[in-house]
Amino acid sequence: MPRYKLVIEYDGRPFSGWQRQDNAPTVMGRIEDSLFKFTRERVTLFGAGRTDSGVHATGQVAHFDLARDWHSQKIKEALNHFLKETGVAVLGAAKVTQDFDSRFLAVRRYYRYRICNRRAPLTFELGRAWQYSYPIDVHLMQQGANLLLGHHDFTTFRATACQAKSPWRTMEALKVIREREWIYLDAMSRSFLHNQIRSFVGSLAEVGSARKPVEWISEILSARDRRACGPVAPPDGLYLTQVDYPDDVNFIISEEPWIGHKKAQ
Amino acid sequence: MPRYKLVIEYDGRPFSGWQRQDNAPTVMGRIEDSLFKFTRERVTLFGAGRTDSGVHATGQVAHFDLARDWHSQKIKEALNHFLKETGVAVLGAAKVTQDFDSRFLAVRRYYRYRICNRRAPLTFELGRAWQYSYPIDVHLMQQGANLLLGHHDFTTFRATACQAKSPWRTMEALKVIREREWIYLDAMSRSFLHNQIRSFVGSLAEVGSARKPVEWISEILSARDRRACGPVAPPDGLYLTQVDYPDDVNFIISEEPWIGHKKAQ
Repeated sequence: MPRYKLVIEYDGRPFSGWQRQDNAPTVMGRIEDSLFKFTRERVTLFGAGRTDSGVHATGQVAHFDLARDWHSQKIKEALNHFLKETGVAVLGAAKVTQDFDSRFLAVRRYYRYRICNRRAPLTFELGRAWQYSYPIDVHLMQQGANLLLGHHDFTTFRATACQAKSPWRTMEALKVIREREWIYLDAMSRSFLHNQIRSFVGSLAEVGSARKPVEWISEILSARDRRACGPVAPPDGLYLTQVDYPDDVNFIISEEPWIGHKKAQ
Repeated sequence: MPRYKLVIEYDGRPFSGWQRQDNAPTVMGRIEDSLFKFTRERVTLFGAGRTDSGVHATGQVAHFDLARDWHSQKIKEALNHFLKETGVAVLGAAKVTQDFDSRFLAVRRYYRYRICNRRAPLTFELGRAWQYSYPIDVHLMQQGANLLLGHHDFTTFRATACQAKSPWRTMEALKVIREREWIYLDAMSRSFLHNQIRSFVGSLAEVGSARKPVEWISEILSARDRRACGPVAPPDGLYLTQVDYPDDVNFIISEEPWIGHKKAQ
Protein backbone atom coordinates (compact mmCIF):
# COMPACT_ATOMS: atom_id res chain seq x y z
CA MET A 1 0.00 0.00 0.00
CA PRO A 2 1.98 3.02 -1.20
CA ARG A 3 2.18 6.14 1.00
CA TYR A 4 2.44 9.65 -0.41
CA LYS A 5 3.69 12.94 0.99
CA LEU A 6 2.28 16.23 -0.32
CA VAL A 7 3.51 19.81 0.11
CA ILE A 8 0.45 22.03 -0.11
CA GLU A 9 -0.26 25.75 -0.51
CA TYR A 10 -3.65 27.25 0.27
CA ASP A 11 -5.51 30.49 0.67
CA GLY A 12 -7.44 29.93 3.90
CA ARG A 13 -10.12 32.55 3.19
CA PRO A 14 -12.77 30.28 1.67
CA PHE A 15 -12.21 27.44 4.14
CA SER A 16 -13.36 26.55 7.64
CA GLY A 17 -9.83 25.45 8.42
CA TRP A 18 -7.84 22.33 7.56
CA GLN A 19 -9.73 19.61 9.43
CA ARG A 20 -12.58 17.86 7.61
CA GLN A 21 -16.09 18.84 8.74
CA ASP A 22 -19.42 17.52 7.61
CA ASN A 23 -21.12 20.75 6.60
CA ALA A 24 -18.35 23.23 5.88
CA PRO A 25 -15.66 23.50 3.18
CA THR A 26 -12.24 22.52 4.52
CA VAL A 27 -8.86 22.13 2.88
CA MET A 28 -8.52 18.49 3.92
CA GLY A 29 -12.02 17.69 2.66
CA ARG A 30 -11.36 19.45 -0.65
CA ILE A 31 -8.16 17.49 -1.27
CA GLU A 32 -9.70 14.15 -0.21
CA ASP A 33 -12.63 14.78 -2.58
CA SER A 34 -10.23 15.66 -5.40
CA LEU A 35 -8.22 12.48 -4.78
CA PHE A 36 -11.41 10.44 -5.01
CA LYS A 37 -12.24 11.94 -8.40
CA PHE A 38 -9.38 10.17 -10.14
CA THR A 39 -8.33 7.34 -7.80
CA ARG A 40 -11.90 6.32 -6.82
CA GLU A 41 -10.43 5.66 -3.38
CA ARG A 42 -11.78 7.27 -0.20
CA VAL A 43 -8.68 8.11 1.79
CA THR A 44 -7.88 10.10 4.93
CA LEU A 45 -5.31 12.85 4.69
CA PHE A 46 -3.03 13.47 7.72
CA GLY A 47 -1.72 17.02 7.96
CA ALA A 48 1.28 18.33 9.90
CA GLY A 49 -0.69 21.33 11.16
CA ARG A 50 -4.43 21.59 11.72
CA THR A 51 -4.74 25.22 10.71
CA ASP A 52 -7.78 27.16 11.93
CA SER A 53 -10.50 28.77 9.85
CA GLY A 54 -9.01 31.57 7.73
CA VAL A 55 -5.38 30.53 8.33
CA HIS A 56 -3.21 30.03 5.23
CA ALA A 57 -0.34 27.77 4.24
CA THR A 58 2.53 27.96 1.80
CA GLY A 59 4.16 24.74 3.01
CA GLN A 60 1.65 22.45 4.72
CA VAL A 61 2.70 18.79 4.62
CA ALA A 62 0.29 15.85 4.57
CA HIS A 63 0.42 12.11 3.94
CA PHE A 64 -2.07 9.47 2.81
CA ASP A 65 -2.16 5.87 1.60
CA LEU A 66 -3.61 4.45 -1.61
CA ALA A 67 -4.42 0.86 -2.48
CA ARG A 68 -3.28 1.27 -6.07
CA ASP A 69 0.20 2.40 -7.02
CA TRP A 70 0.34 5.80 -8.75
CA HIS A 71 3.31 7.78 -9.96
CA SER A 72 3.76 10.79 -7.66
CA GLN A 73 3.82 13.16 -10.65
CA LYS A 74 0.42 11.83 -11.75
CA ILE A 75 -0.94 12.41 -8.24
CA LYS A 76 0.31 15.98 -8.27
CA GLU A 77 -0.91 16.89 -11.74
CA ALA A 78 -4.31 15.25 -11.32
CA LEU A 79 -4.85 16.84 -7.91
CA ASN A 80 -3.93 20.27 -9.27
CA HIS A 81 -6.33 19.73 -12.16
CA PHE A 82 -9.24 19.06 -9.81
CA LEU A 83 -8.13 21.77 -7.33
CA LYS A 84 -7.97 24.52 -9.96
CA GLU A 85 -9.61 27.80 -8.84
CA THR A 86 -10.27 26.45 -5.32
CA GLY A 87 -7.36 28.31 -3.72
CA VAL A 88 -5.52 25.04 -3.01
CA ALA A 89 -2.48 23.79 -4.93
CA VAL A 90 -0.08 20.87 -4.56
CA LEU A 91 3.49 22.16 -4.82
CA GLY A 92 5.22 18.80 -4.52
CA ALA A 93 4.42 15.11 -4.19
CA ALA A 94 6.60 12.15 -3.24
CA LYS A 95 6.16 8.45 -2.68
CA VAL A 96 7.42 7.72 0.84
CA THR A 97 8.02 4.72 3.08
CA GLN A 98 5.27 3.43 5.38
CA ASP A 99 6.97 4.84 8.47
CA PHE A 100 6.67 8.45 7.28
CA ASP A 101 4.13 10.40 9.31
CA SER A 102 3.52 14.07 8.50
CA ARG A 103 2.28 14.92 11.99
CA PHE A 104 4.20 12.82 14.49
CA LEU A 105 7.61 12.89 12.83
CA ALA A 106 7.72 16.66 12.27
CA VAL A 107 10.70 18.14 14.10
CA ARG A 108 10.26 21.79 13.17
CA ARG A 109 7.20 23.79 12.17
CA TYR A 110 7.59 27.30 10.74
CA TYR A 111 4.87 29.94 10.77
CA ARG A 112 4.87 33.52 9.51
CA TYR A 113 2.43 36.13 10.80
CA ARG A 114 1.94 39.13 8.47
CA ILE A 115 0.93 42.56 9.77
CA CYS A 116 0.23 45.41 7.36
CA ASN A 117 1.10 48.47 9.43
CA ARG A 118 -0.72 51.33 7.74
CA ARG A 119 -3.87 53.38 8.12
CA ALA A 120 -5.27 52.72 4.64
CA PRO A 121 -7.58 49.69 4.45
CA LEU A 122 -6.28 46.54 2.79
CA THR A 123 -7.00 45.92 -0.89
CA PHE A 124 -5.09 42.97 -2.36
CA GLU A 125 -4.37 41.66 1.12
CA LEU A 126 -7.92 41.64 2.54
CA GLY A 127 -8.14 38.48 4.67
CA ARG A 128 -4.47 37.77 4.05
CA ALA A 129 -2.93 40.04 6.68
CA TRP A 130 -3.76 41.92 9.87
CA GLN A 131 -4.12 45.61 9.18
CA TYR A 132 -2.77 47.53 12.19
CA SER A 133 -3.26 51.30 12.06
CA TYR A 134 -1.08 52.43 14.98
CA PRO A 135 2.66 52.82 14.50
CA ILE A 136 4.64 49.76 15.61
CA ASP A 137 8.27 49.87 16.71
CA VAL A 138 9.66 46.50 15.62
CA HIS A 139 12.62 46.76 17.98
CA LEU A 140 10.28 46.89 20.98
CA MET A 141 8.30 44.03 19.46
CA GLN A 142 11.48 41.97 19.05
CA GLN A 143 12.50 42.63 22.65
CA GLY A 144 9.13 41.34 23.77
CA ALA A 145 9.46 38.29 21.49
CA ASN A 146 12.87 37.47 22.97
CA LEU A 147 11.20 36.98 26.36
CA LEU A 148 9.10 34.17 24.84
CA LEU A 149 12.06 32.22 23.47
CA GLY A 150 13.00 28.91 25.09
CA HIS A 151 11.13 26.36 27.21
CA HIS A 152 8.09 27.74 29.05
CA ASP A 153 4.62 26.94 30.32
CA PHE A 154 2.59 28.86 27.72
CA THR A 155 -0.81 28.59 29.41
CA THR A 156 -1.31 32.35 28.92
CA PHE A 157 -0.89 32.00 25.18
CA ARG A 158 -3.09 29.04 24.37
CA ALA A 159 -6.79 28.87 23.63
CA THR A 160 -8.92 27.55 26.45
CA ALA A 161 -10.08 24.92 23.95
CA CYS A 162 -6.49 23.74 23.32
CA GLN A 163 -6.34 19.95 23.52
CA ALA A 164 -2.59 19.52 24.03
CA LYS A 165 -1.77 17.55 27.17
CA SER A 166 1.01 19.90 28.24
CA PRO A 167 1.20 23.71 28.06
CA TRP A 168 5.00 23.50 27.83
CA ARG A 169 6.64 24.24 24.50
CA THR A 170 10.08 25.33 23.33
CA MET A 171 10.19 28.39 21.09
CA GLU A 172 13.33 28.00 19.01
CA ALA A 173 13.00 31.19 16.96
CA LEU A 174 10.80 34.31 17.05
CA LYS A 175 12.05 36.93 14.63
CA VAL A 176 10.39 40.27 13.87
CA ILE A 177 11.12 41.73 10.44
CA ARG A 178 10.02 45.02 8.87
CA GLU A 179 9.84 45.57 5.11
CA ARG A 180 8.33 49.00 4.40
CA GLU A 181 4.70 48.85 5.65
CA TRP A 182 4.95 45.11 6.35
CA ILE A 183 5.88 43.49 9.65
CA TYR A 184 6.49 39.74 9.85
CA LEU A 185 6.81 37.53 12.91
CA ASP A 186 8.62 34.33 11.93
CA ALA A 187 8.15 31.58 14.51
CA MET A 188 9.76 28.16 14.68
CA SER A 189 9.23 25.30 17.12
CA ARG A 190 8.74 21.54 17.09
CA SER A 191 5.06 22.20 17.80
CA PHE A 192 2.72 24.98 18.85
CA LEU A 193 -0.31 25.23 21.11
CA HIS A 194 -3.73 26.18 19.77
CA ASN A 195 -3.81 29.94 18.96
CA GLN A 196 -0.29 30.34 20.34
CA ILE A 197 1.14 32.50 17.55
CA ARG A 198 -1.98 34.65 17.25
CA SER A 199 -1.83 35.16 21.04
CA PHE A 200 1.87 36.08 20.80
CA VAL A 201 1.21 38.56 17.98
CA GLY A 202 -1.71 40.28 19.69
CA SER A 203 0.31 40.76 22.88
CA LEU A 204 3.50 41.76 21.05
CA ALA A 205 1.57 44.40 19.08
CA GLU A 206 0.63 45.96 22.44
CA VAL A 207 4.34 46.22 23.20
CA GLY A 208 5.34 47.35 19.69
CA SER A 209 2.77 50.15 19.78
CA ALA A 210 4.06 51.18 23.24
CA ARG A 211 0.75 50.58 24.99
CA LYS A 212 2.52 48.12 27.26
CA PRO A 213 6.16 47.96 28.37
CA VAL A 214 8.41 45.16 27.16
CA GLU A 215 8.48 43.58 30.64
CA TRP A 216 4.71 43.09 30.49
CA ILE A 217 5.39 40.04 28.29
CA SER A 218 7.34 38.39 31.14
CA GLU A 219 4.55 39.25 33.55
CA ILE A 220 1.78 37.68 31.52
CA LEU A 221 3.95 34.66 30.61
CA SER A 222 4.67 33.93 34.29
CA ALA A 223 1.00 34.48 35.19
CA ARG A 224 0.19 31.19 33.40
CA ASP A 225 -3.34 32.48 33.06
CA ARG A 226 -5.23 32.78 29.79
CA ARG A 227 -6.98 35.90 31.09
CA ALA A 228 -3.62 37.70 31.27
CA CYS A 229 -3.10 37.44 27.48
CA GLY A 230 -3.44 40.48 25.20
CA PRO A 231 -5.94 40.51 22.33
CA VAL A 232 -5.67 37.52 19.99
CA ALA A 233 -4.61 38.58 16.48
CA PRO A 234 -7.00 37.53 13.66
CA PRO A 235 -6.34 34.37 11.61
CA ASP A 236 -5.94 36.47 8.43
CA GLY A 237 -2.21 37.05 8.90
CA LEU A 238 -1.12 33.50 9.81
CA TYR A 239 0.72 31.21 7.38
CA LEU A 240 2.14 27.71 7.93
CA THR A 241 5.26 28.04 5.77
CA GLN A 242 7.38 24.93 6.29
CA VAL A 243 7.57 21.59 8.11
CA ASP A 244 10.85 19.74 8.61
CA TYR A 245 11.47 16.02 9.18
CA PRO A 246 14.59 14.28 10.48
CA ASP A 247 16.69 12.66 7.79
CA ASP A 248 13.99 13.63 5.39
CA VAL A 249 15.58 11.91 2.46
CA ASN A 250 15.41 8.47 4.10
CA PHE A 251 11.65 8.36 3.69
CA ILE A 252 11.59 9.31 0.04
CA ILE A 253 11.11 6.52 -2.48
CA SER A 254 10.53 8.74 -5.51
CA GLU A 255 9.88 12.43 -5.72
CA GLU A 256 8.82 15.05 -8.16
CA PRO A 257 10.82 18.24 -8.12
CA TRP A 258 9.38 21.19 -6.26
CA ILE A 259 7.30 23.09 -8.76
CA GLY A 260 8.48 26.52 -9.66
CA HIS A 261 11.69 28.17 -10.63
CA LYS A 262 13.89 25.18 -9.97
CA LYS A 263 12.10 23.24 -12.65
CA ALA A 264 12.14 26.22 -14.94
CA GLN A 265 15.91 26.71 -15.00
CA MET B 1 -12.50 75.80 -5.91
CA PRO B 2 -9.89 73.56 -4.28
CA ARG B 3 -8.26 70.78 -6.29
CA TYR B 4 -7.11 67.49 -4.76
CA LYS B 5 -4.60 64.86 -5.81
CA LEU B 6 -5.05 61.25 -4.71
CA VAL B 7 -2.66 58.30 -4.79
CA ILE B 8 -4.78 55.17 -5.08
CA GLU B 9 -4.28 51.43 -4.71
CA TYR B 10 -6.79 48.92 -6.06
CA ASP B 11 -7.35 45.27 -6.69
CA GLY B 12 -8.72 45.24 -10.24
CA ARG B 13 -10.47 41.88 -9.97
CA PRO B 14 -13.96 43.08 -9.02
CA PHE B 15 -13.93 46.02 -11.43
CA SER B 16 -14.65 46.62 -15.11
CA GLY B 17 -11.60 48.85 -15.26
CA TRP B 18 -10.96 52.41 -14.15
CA GLN B 19 -13.27 54.44 -16.40
CA ARG B 20 -16.82 55.07 -15.18
CA GLN B 21 -19.53 53.01 -16.92
CA ASP B 22 -23.26 53.11 -16.46
CA ASN B 23 -23.94 49.48 -15.70
CA ALA B 24 -20.70 48.04 -14.39
CA PRO B 25 -18.60 48.55 -11.25
CA THR B 26 -15.53 50.67 -11.96
CA VAL B 27 -12.82 52.11 -9.72
CA MET B 28 -13.52 55.69 -10.79
CA GLY B 29 -17.25 55.24 -10.22
CA ARG B 30 -16.68 53.70 -6.81
CA ILE B 31 -14.47 56.58 -5.65
CA GLU B 32 -16.81 59.24 -7.08
CA ASP B 33 -19.74 57.60 -5.27
CA SER B 34 -17.75 57.47 -2.04
CA LEU B 35 -16.83 61.16 -2.37
CA PHE B 36 -20.50 62.02 -2.79
CA LYS B 37 -21.39 60.21 0.42
CA PHE B 38 -19.66 62.76 2.61
CA THR B 39 -19.20 65.89 0.41
CA ARG B 40 -22.67 65.67 -1.21
CA GLU B 41 -20.91 66.90 -4.34
CA ARG B 42 -21.03 65.04 -7.67
CA VAL B 43 -17.51 65.34 -9.03
CA THR B 44 -15.54 63.85 -11.91
CA LEU B 45 -12.28 62.10 -11.12
CA PHE B 46 -9.43 62.37 -13.65
CA GLY B 47 -6.98 59.46 -13.53
CA ALA B 48 -3.42 59.29 -14.86
CA GLY B 49 -4.01 55.87 -16.37
CA ARG B 50 -7.29 54.40 -17.60
CA THR B 51 -6.57 50.84 -16.57
CA ASP B 52 -8.49 48.02 -18.28
CA SER B 53 -10.86 45.54 -16.68
CA GLY B 54 -8.94 43.32 -14.25
CA VAL B 55 -5.82 45.53 -14.20
CA HIS B 56 -4.54 46.61 -10.77
CA ALA B 57 -2.82 49.65 -9.33
CA THR B 58 -0.55 50.33 -6.39
CA GLY B 59 0.13 53.96 -7.38
CA GLN B 60 -2.65 55.34 -9.59
CA VAL B 61 -2.91 59.15 -9.40
CA ALA B 62 -6.13 61.12 -9.88
CA HIS B 63 -7.36 64.68 -9.34
CA PHE B 64 -10.76 66.30 -8.78
CA ASP B 65 -12.26 69.62 -7.70
CA LEU B 66 -14.65 70.37 -4.86
CA ALA B 67 -16.76 73.47 -4.24
CA ARG B 68 -16.23 73.32 -0.52
CA ASP B 69 -12.81 73.37 1.09
CA TRP B 70 -11.85 70.16 2.92
CA HIS B 71 -8.66 69.23 4.71
CA SER B 72 -6.83 66.63 2.62
CA GLN B 73 -6.54 64.31 5.62
CA LYS B 74 -10.32 64.40 6.05
CA ILE B 75 -10.75 63.53 2.38
CA LYS B 76 -8.43 60.57 2.73
CA GLU B 77 -9.86 59.20 5.95
CA ALA B 78 -13.48 59.62 4.88
CA LEU B 79 -12.83 58.05 1.46
CA ASN B 80 -11.10 55.08 3.08
CA HIS B 81 -14.02 54.69 5.45
CA PHE B 82 -16.50 54.45 2.58
CA LEU B 83 -14.14 52.36 0.42
CA LYS B 84 -13.55 49.72 3.11
CA GLU B 85 -13.78 46.13 1.81
CA THR B 86 -14.20 47.30 -1.81
CA GLY B 87 -10.59 46.56 -2.79
CA VAL B 88 -9.84 50.28 -3.26
CA ALA B 89 -7.79 52.40 -0.83
CA VAL B 90 -6.47 55.96 -0.85
CA LEU B 91 -2.79 55.92 0.11
CA GLY B 92 -2.25 59.67 0.04
CA ALA B 93 -4.15 62.91 -0.53
CA ALA B 94 -2.94 66.44 -1.15
CA LYS B 95 -4.48 69.80 -1.89
CA VAL B 96 -2.93 70.99 -5.15
CA THR B 97 -2.95 74.10 -7.33
CA GLN B 98 -5.49 74.47 -10.13
CA ASP B 99 -2.88 73.84 -12.81
CA PHE B 100 -2.18 70.31 -11.58
CA ASP B 101 -3.51 67.69 -14.00
CA SER B 102 -3.01 64.01 -13.19
CA ARG B 103 -3.24 62.91 -16.81
CA PHE B 104 -1.69 65.60 -18.99
CA LEU B 105 1.18 66.61 -16.73
CA ALA B 106 2.41 63.08 -16.04
CA VAL B 107 6.01 62.72 -17.26
CA ARG B 108 6.63 59.10 -16.32
CA ARG B 109 4.28 56.16 -15.84
CA TYR B 110 5.55 52.94 -14.27
CA TYR B 111 3.92 49.55 -14.71
CA ARG B 112 4.88 46.14 -13.38
CA TYR B 113 3.73 42.91 -15.02
CA ARG B 114 3.84 39.84 -12.73
CA ILE B 115 4.27 36.31 -14.10
CA CYS B 116 4.13 33.31 -11.77
CA ASN B 117 6.32 30.78 -13.55
CA ARG B 118 5.28 27.42 -12.14
CA ARG B 119 3.12 24.46 -13.00
CA ALA B 120 0.97 24.49 -9.87
CA PRO B 121 -2.21 26.57 -10.21
CA LEU B 122 -2.36 29.92 -8.44
CA THR B 123 -3.90 30.15 -4.97
CA PHE B 124 -3.37 33.53 -3.28
CA GLU B 125 -2.52 35.09 -6.63
CA LEU B 126 -5.56 34.00 -8.64
CA GLY B 127 -6.41 36.98 -10.88
CA ARG B 128 -3.35 38.84 -9.61
CA ALA B 129 -0.69 37.30 -11.85
CA TRP B 130 -0.25 35.36 -15.08
CA GLN B 131 0.50 31.74 -14.36
CA TYR B 132 2.94 30.49 -17.00
CA SER B 133 3.70 26.76 -16.86
CA TYR B 134 6.61 26.52 -19.29
CA PRO B 135 10.14 27.38 -18.12
CA ILE B 136 11.14 30.95 -18.97
CA ASP B 137 14.74 32.08 -19.37
CA VAL B 138 14.72 35.67 -18.14
CA HIS B 139 17.98 36.49 -19.90
CA LEU B 140 16.39 35.70 -23.27
CA MET B 141 13.35 37.71 -22.22
CA GLN B 142 15.53 40.68 -21.27
CA GLN B 143 17.37 40.51 -24.63
CA GLY B 144 14.01 40.67 -26.37
CA ALA B 145 12.89 43.56 -24.17
CA ASN B 146 16.04 45.51 -25.00
CA LEU B 147 14.96 45.54 -28.66
CA LEU B 148 11.81 47.45 -27.64
CA LEU B 149 13.66 50.22 -25.80
CA GLY B 150 13.71 53.73 -27.30
CA HIS B 151 11.54 55.56 -29.82
CA HIS B 152 9.52 53.33 -32.13
CA ASP B 153 6.29 52.97 -34.05
CA PHE B 154 4.57 50.39 -31.81
CA THR B 155 1.63 49.60 -34.12
CA THR B 156 2.32 45.86 -33.63
CA PHE B 157 1.91 46.20 -29.88
CA ARG B 158 -1.26 48.24 -29.57
CA ALA B 159 -4.88 47.15 -29.54
CA THR B 160 -6.76 47.81 -32.76
CA ALA B 161 -9.18 49.81 -30.59
CA CYS B 162 -6.36 52.10 -29.34
CA GLN B 163 -7.45 55.72 -29.62
CA ALA B 164 -4.01 57.38 -29.42
CA LYS B 165 -3.32 59.62 -32.42
CA SER B 166 0.22 58.35 -32.87
CA PRO B 167 1.62 54.82 -32.55
CA TRP B 168 5.03 56.26 -31.64
CA ARG B 169 6.18 55.98 -28.05
CA THR B 170 9.52 56.07 -26.24
CA MET B 171 10.22 53.15 -23.92
CA GLU B 172 12.62 54.45 -21.30
CA ALA B 173 13.01 51.27 -19.26
CA LEU B 174 12.02 47.61 -19.67
CA LYS B 175 13.59 45.46 -17.01
CA VAL B 176 13.05 41.73 -16.46
CA ILE B 177 13.58 40.49 -12.90
CA ARG B 178 13.35 36.97 -11.49
CA GLU B 179 12.69 36.25 -7.82
CA ARG B 180 12.27 32.51 -7.31
CA GLU B 181 9.09 31.46 -9.17
CA TRP B 182 8.22 35.11 -9.94
CA ILE B 183 9.14 37.06 -13.05
CA TYR B 184 8.50 40.82 -13.23
CA LEU B 185 8.61 43.10 -16.25
CA ASP B 186 9.06 46.68 -15.05
CA ALA B 187 8.19 49.22 -17.75
CA MET B 188 8.58 53.00 -17.70
CA SER B 189 7.57 55.60 -20.30
CA ARG B 190 5.87 58.97 -20.46
CA SER B 191 2.82 57.17 -21.81
CA PHE B 192 1.77 53.81 -23.18
CA LEU B 193 -0.54 52.63 -25.97
CA HIS B 194 -3.66 50.57 -25.25
CA ASN B 195 -2.62 46.98 -24.37
CA GLN B 196 1.03 47.81 -25.04
CA ILE B 197 2.56 46.14 -21.99
CA ARG B 198 0.33 43.07 -22.21
CA SER B 199 1.34 42.78 -25.88
CA PHE B 200 5.01 43.12 -24.95
CA VAL B 201 4.71 40.47 -22.23
CA GLY B 202 2.87 37.95 -24.41
CA SER B 203 5.50 38.26 -27.14
CA LEU B 204 8.45 38.30 -24.73
CA ALA B 205 7.16 35.10 -23.07
CA GLU B 206 7.43 33.44 -26.51
CA VAL B 207 11.08 34.45 -26.57
CA GLY B 208 11.74 33.58 -22.90
CA SER B 209 10.30 30.11 -23.39
CA ALA B 210 12.48 29.67 -26.51
CA ARG B 211 9.54 29.20 -28.85
CA LYS B 212 10.77 32.19 -30.83
CA PRO B 213 14.30 33.58 -31.28
CA VAL B 214 15.23 36.93 -29.74
CA GLU B 215 15.41 38.56 -33.20
CA TRP B 216 11.74 37.77 -33.75
CA ILE B 217 10.95 40.78 -31.53
CA SER B 218 12.72 43.08 -34.04
CA GLU B 219 10.87 41.44 -36.90
CA ILE B 220 7.42 41.95 -35.46
CA LEU B 221 8.26 45.48 -34.26
CA SER B 222 9.36 46.53 -37.75
CA ALA B 223 6.33 44.83 -39.31
CA ARG B 224 4.16 47.61 -37.78
CA ASP B 225 1.25 45.21 -38.06
CA ARG B 226 -1.00 44.19 -35.17
CA ARG B 227 -1.35 40.71 -36.67
CA ALA B 228 2.39 40.14 -36.20
CA CYS B 229 2.09 40.39 -32.40
CA GLY B 230 2.36 37.34 -30.14
CA PRO B 231 -0.46 36.39 -27.77
CA VAL B 232 -1.62 39.22 -25.50
CA ALA B 233 -0.95 38.46 -21.82
CA PRO B 234 -4.01 38.56 -19.51
CA PRO B 235 -4.83 41.70 -17.48
CA ASP B 236 -4.36 39.74 -14.22
CA GLY B 237 -0.62 40.44 -14.00
CA LEU B 238 -0.62 44.18 -14.79
CA TYR B 239 -0.12 46.87 -12.11
CA LEU B 240 0.14 50.66 -12.49
CA THR B 241 2.74 51.30 -9.79
CA GLN B 242 3.75 54.96 -9.99
CA VAL B 243 3.16 58.24 -11.85
CA ASP B 244 5.69 61.07 -11.79
CA TYR B 245 5.13 64.80 -12.34
CA PRO B 246 7.66 67.52 -13.08
CA ASP B 247 8.60 69.64 -10.08
CA ASP B 248 5.96 67.72 -8.21
CA VAL B 249 6.32 69.76 -5.09
CA ASN B 250 5.34 73.04 -6.82
CA PHE B 251 1.75 71.89 -7.14
CA ILE B 252 1.32 70.85 -3.53
CA ILE B 253 -0.50 73.26 -1.22
CA SER B 254 -0.86 70.85 1.70
CA GLU B 255 -0.27 67.17 1.87
CA GLU B 256 -0.84 64.22 4.14
CA PRO B 257 2.12 61.92 4.55
CA TRP B 258 2.12 58.71 2.57
CA ILE B 259 0.39 56.15 4.70
CA GLY B 260 2.47 53.29 5.93
CA HIS B 261 5.84 52.74 7.48
CA LYS B 262 7.00 56.34 7.12
CA LYS B 263 4.23 57.47 9.40
CA ALA B 264 4.87 54.61 11.77
CA GLN B 265 8.52 55.36 12.47
